[in-house]
Amino acid sequence: MSEKKLIIPRKLSGFMELPPSKQAVLDNMIEKIKNVYQSSGFMPLDTPVLELSEILLAKSGGDIDKEVYNFKKGDTDICMRYDLTVPLARYVAMNSEQISFPFKRYQIGKVYRGERAQKGRFREFIQCDADIVGLNDLSLVADAECLMLVSKVFNALDIDILIHISNRNILFGICEAIGKKEVAEDILRNLDKLSKIGQENVLQELYNLSLNENEAKSLIKLTKTNGNFADVLSKIKPLSNNETYQKGIGELEQLYSYLKAYNLDEKKYILDLSIIRGQNYYTGTIFEAIMPSHPEFGTVCGGGRYNNLAGYYTVKKMPGVGLSIGLTRLFSLLDQNNLLPAFKETNLDLQIIPLGETIEECLTLQAYFSTKINCEVNYENRSFKAKMKEANKRQIPFILVVGENEVQSKTYALKDMLSGEQLQLTKEEILSKLINNK
Amino acid sequence: MSEKKLIIPRKLSGFMELPPSKQAVLDNMIEKIKNVYQSSGFMPLDTPVLELSEILLAKSGGDIDKEVYNFKKGDTDICMRYDLTVPLARYVAMNSEQISFPFKRYQIGKVYRGERAQKGRFREFIQCDADIVGLNDLSLVADAECLMLVSKVFNALDIDILIHISNRNILFGICEAIGKKEVAEDILRNLDKLSKIGQENVLQELYNLSLNENEAKSLIKLTKTNGNFADVLSKIKPLSNNETYQKGIGELEQLYSYLKAYNLDEKKYILDLSIIRGQNYYTGTIFEAIMPSHPEFGTVCGGGRYNNLAGYYTVKKMPGVGLSIGLTRLFSLLDQNNLLPAFKETNLDLQIIPLGETIEECLTLQAYFSTKINCEVNYENRSFKAKMKEANKRQIPFILVVGENEVQSKTYALKDMLSGEQLQLTKEEILSKLINNK
Repeated sequence: MSEKKLIIPRKLSGFMELPPSKQAVLDNMIEKIKNVYQSSGFMPLDTPVLELSEILLAKSGGDIDKEVYNFKKGDTDICMRYDLTVPLARYVAMNSEQISFPFKRYQIGKVYRGERAQKGRFREFIQCDADIVGLNDLSLVADAECLMLVSKVFNALDIDILIHISNRNILFGICEAIGKKEVAEDILRNLDKLSKIGQENVLQELYNLSLNENEAKSLIKLTKTNGNFADVLSKIKPLSNNETYQKGIGELEQLYSYLKAYNLDEKKYILDLSIIRGQNYYTGTIFEAIMPSHPEFGTVCGGGRYNNLAGYYTVKKMPGVGLSIGLTRLFSLLDQNNLLPAFKETNLDLQIIPLGETIEECLTLQAYFSTKINCEVNYENRSFKAKMKEANKRQIPFILVVGENEVQSKTYALKDMLSGEQLQLTKEEILSKLINNK
Repeated sequence: MSEKKLIIPRKLSGFMELPPSKQAVLDNMIEKIKNVYQSSGFMPLDTPVLELSEILLAKSGGDIDKEVYNFKKGDTDICMRYDLTVPLARYVAMNSEQISFPFKRYQIGKVYRGERAQKGRFREFIQCDADIVGLNDLSLVADAECLMLVSKVFNALDIDILIHISNRNILFGICEAIGKKEVAEDILRNLDKLSKIGQENVLQELYNLSLNENEAKSLIKLTKTNGNFADVLSKIKPLSNNETYQKGIGELEQLYSYLKAYNLDEKKYILDLSIIRGQNYYTGTIFEAIMPSHPEFGTVCGGGRYNNLAGYYTVKKMPGVGLSIGLTRLFSLLDQNNLLPAFKETNLDLQIIPLGETIEECLTLQAYFSTKINCEVNYENRSFKAKMKEANKRQIPFILVVGENEVQSKTYALKDMLSGEQLQLTKEEILSKLINNK
């Protein structure tokens, strides 16, 4: 080795890599999200990270977005998935004969976007998605179920959120009413930029789409409407007779009655017409959750209803509704703002330290304890004092000291590292004490 | 959509994709493995799937193995990880100042090898690794701890295994004793091919390395030595006085005393000198687990001791010992042989079916139940009979029928789908019954 030139160890920028103590916190969050998804009958799916480019880029007609990691292996053109929705569409189209609809699946996995690395943006990040996919039709109850999932997930994570809800038919309906149905998607995309590029620029874009001043300003004013769901709903209901608009109103009314039936706290959601969601596959309910205590975090969860998930792959109509949490970004924001739950350097309940030639006795004890608690033997070649100092630093709650006397007496010195208390106990007594302590 | 040409939905070959009911079984296996790793104080690590090629290909001097997925993004030469060991080496070299040694980490994640797809071989597969990395030195107790992990993991998975153990210093020592130290790695690599290419071919290879007939045949005979650990150990101990050989004997004796201290059942492991492990980074203890009931599955878990993990990246000496389970392959073999634990189409404890206009009541009940059990409302627009048939097919254990009378009486018809029994109960009674039933 000595003649070899060392390679400086480093990782790619834009890729999160946590020390194990923090990784354990992230894993714990994933576990909680998974449990919530399962509690509503969602089942896990795990699609490959790699897909045929033809499949993944169907939407763009095969054009490779700069963000997508794309390469050839032999003759095969391959992409790394950039979200979990396109693989879901591919999966349901491929397996529609075997699937029981509505198909309720969750997928928690890494996705890849090779965009310019910047603060808070990751090139590899975990998405936690749950979707309900129907065949031919799907009840609006599914939309309410997804909103309940959002609420329950963040409850489980102990993160206070406010869900901003809208329905795409509202703004679509207004576009239709002013004779601009053909450019409705463009109008919505520009309205969505309001907070980024400002009102003057959005107005200019709308004029370019040949809206007059009155139309453009009314639309912008409408997107600024938000507040208590019932209040806003009754206020906007009479604004237009357009059929699409009234379809949106009807869906919002229905959704509201379901959310009330679910007993979702009315302080936890609002009707907010500024919610548009960029992706043009959304066709009805749309929502974004923000943290009122940290609005600068932006959207921590978003989703909505799409009326035809798998249209690139099958003639079968598959409407769906889903939600997605960008967990890597959320975790990173919580971490930077010291909002993560407390974490420890170790998951150990007990460390056994041999004193003298007692290693075999320590291993026998470890085998006994580790069926019920997390336990290791410190077999390092270091002084007892150094080991105790290290155990303290790692916040190991209990230490068992096993000297040669203990091997004879079969009672062992258990030290509570927090209180400093030390007791001489049998292994059975120790195990029962530590189980109770967990 | 109708004008667009459909793209046939398909996935890349060599990539496992399970239906959700089977995915749940795989997830459950991962959960069990994780719990065992944690019970011995191992903490989680999650390195990125993508690494700089320079880092990942350090061993081969930058040469790209055909198996490795490699591509350029802008000016950056990137590889997908092909194992979890090289990223671990990179991680400990990068973070050696922050890490408490011995560093005990597990990582369960996907790795990628673009080899020719064949039965039982996957291009994307899950590895479940646990390693203990020391700084400067690492006690042989760590080797015993890894072997205990192997035993405990497969116990937790309810899979009967036999662990074949050896030590690389045994065959190295013999190579030294016959004056073939320089080609020892080549000799071992050829001996490792015995079961694949047969004795005659191995003999020829050994002759090519200028071993004489007696040396070659003795070596082959030695690798065929296996059986009860203590018996084989005492039998091979006097075979050579070579220092390396006797170092191997000493390590095996020490290891054996630790395994006995751990009370590892002596029927669960043997000493087997045919175990060589291809990777030339192993330097001491080596092991492979097989399923005695299915030897044709080959190695289901392997690992060993390496004396210098991160030598390409740091001058610090970091000896380690670890194990790796190729879970995707194992799962696939169990599945093909109908050895997977029973699985259900759903994780639901209860499905609520509305009869008439009772959807809101059903949602309120779902909100109540789903804090404690897995519960959904069947809001599909289908007949009651079709819904019951579907629930039966999906093996949902309990169905709650909510008609308009039930909304009035606040008692609901709970049907046990297995026994056919039907009870009229309050929601509190239902919840307590179903919690007890879990």
